[in-house]
Amino acid sequence: MSAPILAVSRRTRRTPFSPRVEAHGVKGYTVYNHMLLPTAFQTVEEDYHHLKRHVQVWDVSCERQVEIVGPDAARLTQLMTPRDMGRIVAGQCAYAPLVDENGRMINDPVILKLAEDRFWISVADSDVVLWAKGIAYGMGLDVKVFEPEVGPLGIQGPQADELALRVLGEGVRDIRFFRFAWLPFEGHEFLVARSGWSKQGGFEVYVDDAERGLALHDALFAAGEDLQVRPGCPNLIERIEGGLYSYGNDMTIEHDPYESGLAKYCNLDSGHDFMARAALENLVAKGGPSRMIRGVVFEGESCPACVEAWPAHQDGAPVGQVTSAAHSPDLVTNVAFGMIDRGAWDTDTAIIVETPEGPRNGKVTDIPFM
Amino acid sequence: MSAPILAVSRRTRRTPFSPRVEAHGVKGYTVYNHMLLPTAFQTVEEDYHHLKRHVQVWDVSCERQVEIVGPDAARLTQLMTPRDMGRIVAGQCAYAPLVDENGRMINDPVILKLAEDRFWISVADSDVVLWAKGIAYGMGLDVKVFEPEVGPLGIQGPQADELALRVLGEGVRDIRFFRFAWLPFEGHEFLVARSGWSKQGGFEVYVDDAERGLALHDALFAAGEDLQVRPGCPNLIERIEGGLYSYGNDMTIEHDPYESGLAKYCNLDSGHDFMARAALENLVAKGGPSRMIRGVVFEGESCPACVEAWPAHQDGAPVGQVTSAAHSPDLVTNVAFGMIDRGAWDTDTAIIVETPEGPRNGKVTDIPFM
Repeated sequence: MSAPILAVSRRTRRTPFSPRVEAHGVKGYTVYNHMLLPTAFQTVEEDYHHLKRHVQVWDVSCERQVEIVGPDAARLTQLMTPRDMGRIVAGQCAYAPLVDENGRMINDPVILKLAEDRFWISVADSDVVLWAKGIAYGMGLDVKVFEPEVGPLGIQGPQADELALRVLGEGVRDIRFFRFAWLPFEGHEFLVARSGWSKQGGFEVYVDDAERGLALHDALFAAGEDLQVRPGCPNLIERIEGGLYSYGNDMTIEHDPYESGLAKYCNLDSGHDFMARAALENLVAKGGPSRMIRGVVFEGESCPACVEAWPAHQDGAPVGQVTSAAHSPDLVTNVAFGMIDRGAWDTDTAIIVETPEGPRNGKVTDIPFM
Repeated sequence: MSAPILAVSRRTRRTPFSPRVEAHGVKGYTVYNHMLLPTAFQTVEEDYHHLKRHVQVWDVSCERQVEIVGPDAARLTQLMTPRDMGRIVAGQCAYAPLVDENGRMINDPVILKLAEDRFWISVADSDVVLWAKGIAYGMGLDVKVFEPEVGPLGIQGPQADELALRVLGEGVRDIRFFRFAWLPFEGHEFLVARSGWSKQGGFEVYVDDAERGLALHDALFAAGEDLQVRPGCPNLIERIEGGLYSYGNDMTIEHDPYESGLAKYCNLDSGHDFMARAALENLVAKGGPSRMIRGVVFEGESCPACVEAWPAHQDGAPVGQVTSAAHSPDLVTNVAFGMIDRGAWDTDTAIIVETPEGPRNGKVTDIPFM
């Protein structure tokens, strides 16, 4: 079929930047956290080349924040993740799997520690606010849990530092990777983090004032003309090349964090109380996962969008499935993520990927691809 | 701008019926509970006329089920809603606002009581499964909470009874409104409820077996040829005419159930323990809501899609906002829902609706429109 139209309603929320995104000729949207997320401005491949060479401004307002604030905020935040949050200081961002009492993935956010008693959980596509509210209510915790009106604006690409410097000032130089600071712009202090859903470097500005956010957006485009700044968005090809997983695509509530390739964030020795502890200790005691997210490359000029998992097999026996795939112009092959069984997950294992266009010869690889 | 393309991925889940929906030439999709929901097959207006005259088969798989099962299932289900679940018997469906401890709307599902210790919550667009899991964990309840692989297939329209009778047999006659029964089809028993998100009558078949669901789908089309059966979907015009609210459009987590027009489901006198009790009793003690969902009609040939709330005012003073709107061919006017302030909510109050195409003269009305 031809690509379907997205019927937009108030429920698929627009963002403060939607008018700009549309003036820039956005080609496609997806819906993420009940909100519009652009998926292409030129073609995905043209956007990819530009992102890897220049700088882009991204409307990622759909990375919603779940604010947890109050005397029990640190306790609740730690309960939700096996990552040792005791090592995270105020001003730091922490990529952290959220894992339930069964050891299953609820989300894989970046958690911003604003203060000892205040966190923003910058979530992937599931209603973490409801989970956190439920736990807090059930345990009678002394916290407030809500979604503030905050949406990130991304500045991504090799020229991101230069552009951010021009608009947000010298303060950006002092922000280390996965740290944040409050920087002034036209009299308003924005939270600026050195982070983002690409591997090309850059920042996310947590916009908590729509009008000033628009002024910032426009200032970035004005200041970046000679840098060839363009509108952009998380890019399917680049995020696979760079090894960035997508919750809902590459792992779901059916998977545990070990299967999801997130073992290093499972700090079972932290001594902290987190709700997945018993389940994860049990998984480890049983010898670890029997399948895991792995890289996959496979032959062929290009591949269609992976809108449903594609079976992978070896000599006719199923060995897992491919969950995200794209043709990489720079690697001149198709790159993919797959949930691959233990028996086939070693690097360079030959597998067959059943795409909608037929079987393709492939092999298992390490992540990231580049 | 022209209508944007929806970029589909595994995360925006396809349904067992997506291949049929696409073969039928679906014109638009939305994303609902992380899943594809068709929005039009001909035009919304052509679909509307057909729905009100004939019978349609709807892929509403996105009405996901949250299963709550176990010794504490009834207790947890009652905790989440102010509706008196003690009056609901096994085999019954109950439209029930889910309301948090602050008295705010989490969802407005239909709850199916499968047994004294087993419920399916057929949810609108928010991750109720995460909220329920959080509460259950926090309180240490003895329940399992999960999303089973069940998605409804709707049979809607004035000829729905005839079509269901032909395919599902005489058993459909005995199903009263908002009741369900297990009916055989090709050796499988499907849960069939007399319900659906239209006011034209019909059924929802809770498909728990994708392959047999496809056979059922195809049997409905084969048996309904002389009834002019067509693919359909929840229809914006018909649902507004009929007074069916949409969570995320007409009310959100910002609103309480009184504002949401759901006072009759707030059974404060039930004696049951539900988490919103204190908040709702407080709202009532304060004299009830200061704004409420009301019907609105306004002039003009037709109106654009309401993708952001439209302000409503009276002599220049704001009196609320319109949240869903469509031109009704049968009523020959624009019909809408709005969250209208107390001072303006009386029937026939004249108001101005600020549409993107300019102000329109309108008035407040009762719901439903027809």
